[in-house]
Amino acid sequence: MRRLIATALPGFPAIQPGHDLIALTLAGLEAAHIKPTHDDVLVFASKIISKAEGRFRDLRRVRVSPAAREIANACAKDPRLVELILAESRRVLRVRPGLIVVEHRLGFVCANAGVDHSNVGPDHEQVLLLPEDPDASAQRLREGLCKATGAKMAVIINDSHGRAWRLGTVGAAIGLAGMHPLIDRRGQTDLFGRKLQVTVLAAADEIAAAASLLQGGAAESSPVVHIRGAEFTPGRGRLKDLLRPQEQDLFR
Amino acid sequence: MRRLIATALPGFPAIQPGHDLIALTLAGLEAAHIKPTHDDVLVFASKIISKAEGRFRDLRRVRVSPAAREIANACAKDPRLVELILAESRRVLRVRPGLIVVEHRLGFVCANAGVDHSNVGPDHEQVLLLPEDPDASAQRLREGLCKATGAKMAVIINDSHGRAWRLGTVGAAIGLAGMHPLIDRRGQTDLFGRKLQVTVLAAADEIAAAASLLQGGAAESSPVVHIRGAEFTPGRGRLKDLLRPQEQDLFR
Repeated sequence: MRRLIATALPGFPAIQPGHDLIALTLAGLEAAHIKPTHDDVLVFASKIISKAEGRFRDLRRVRVSPAAREIANACAKDPRLVELILAESRRVLRVRPGLIVVEHRLGFVCANAGVDHSNVGPDHEQVLLLPEDPDASAQRLREGLCKATGAKMAVIINDSHGRAWRLGTVGAAIGLAGMHPLIDRRGQTDLFGRKLQVTVLAAADEIAAAASLLQGGAAESSPVVHIRGAEFTPGRGRLKDLLRPQEQDLFR
Repeated sequence: MRRLIATALPGFPAIQPGHDLIALTLAGLEAAHIKPTHDDVLVFASKIISKAEGRFRDLRRVRVSPAAREIANACAKDPRLVELILAESRRVLRVRPGLIVVEHRLGFVCANAGVDHSNVGPDHEQVLLLPEDPDASAQRLREGLCKATGAKMAVIINDSHGRAWRLGTVGAAIGLAGMHPLIDRRGQTDLFGRKLQVTVLAAADEIAAAASLLQGGAAESSPVVHIRGAEFTPGRGRLKDLLRPQEQDLFR
């Protein structure tokens, strides 16, 4: 019988710069009585990666450009926040009150470049950027975890993304290591010998979404989720493999 | 410890018109030794709903309109298939070789109006439409399952959707019963007393994606997935609650 088990690892404190996420994850696995295997995936909420890596920015120290001021007027956001959003973006796709949709410097499309005010700290002038290089962060976590456990599991860093046509956010992968994010069934045939139509599954995003069901909530008490039983293709994948190339994009 | 367990129910045959999905699901739950509770969700692949409801169409019996012929030329698809796609759509958003992106008559944006060739049957002139009214189908399944088990579980019907900016498909909800598809955290505050930014989670889509990880593959042997441990808000939700209203849509 095929079964997927996702476990929110217990025992994570409010993460601060310098916290050892590998040690905390190993402790969480042990507390959950999970012995990792090669087929497992560990999903980390991007926010704790950002915090551990010290990706805080102080709004009081931001110098606002004329371009940021103009967009801030159009969307009624703090111009200092808009300045940080622009610095994290390749380009701005849409602006409306309260929202700037951008192509992030990492390549994906998201709201407000992932620059976040929530759960950052008691100082409301502090905001948090996404990790500098989530693929590299995932790779470091994976290497540390593999070394400690002997299990060559995969790692995904996920974030909450809005969608163009649907309401609400879903977990999506913004960095990964040890797996290809897509499962490619091209060339396979269906039960009746016809070539499959829907042939490429975004497994990393589906795993990111499944983990998000346990990470949710204001308390941020479950930032790391262990997943067993999800099909994926091991290998040297990266975020870029998940992103539609600009020239194929009909909606940018 | 918070844990989500998704189980692919065993024993499903290749579904044909008139198959009793409620009886098959009850047998699958029993074979998996699962006693349903109020907090559970059952996720059904849309394709088996379509098949059980007889949503087959014979391409040989389709009369092609001039509009369909014109679009078929632009995307190099079978004009008869394009005619069926148009009949299932409110409007066409984009056309490119091999692909027509539409606003489906049910309200969501998807490729080729969900009209599917794969795993339909040995006759390659047969295609399958999405269920007539997936919310109503979900409601019927829920009522039958509640009556038989006494557990007021939620039901989701999912399908594989492409995304605007990312490669690969993910499971998404196209019909539901017994739950609100969104979890609304507006008004809640974070650990530090600041109002939450990402406040509405598309729980139904995350559950649909998690289930899809077990349904995947050409064999279609696991069309129904039982999910325990996912947070959701019970109630009378419907697909429409998940769809961004046209006037808020920046990318249509």
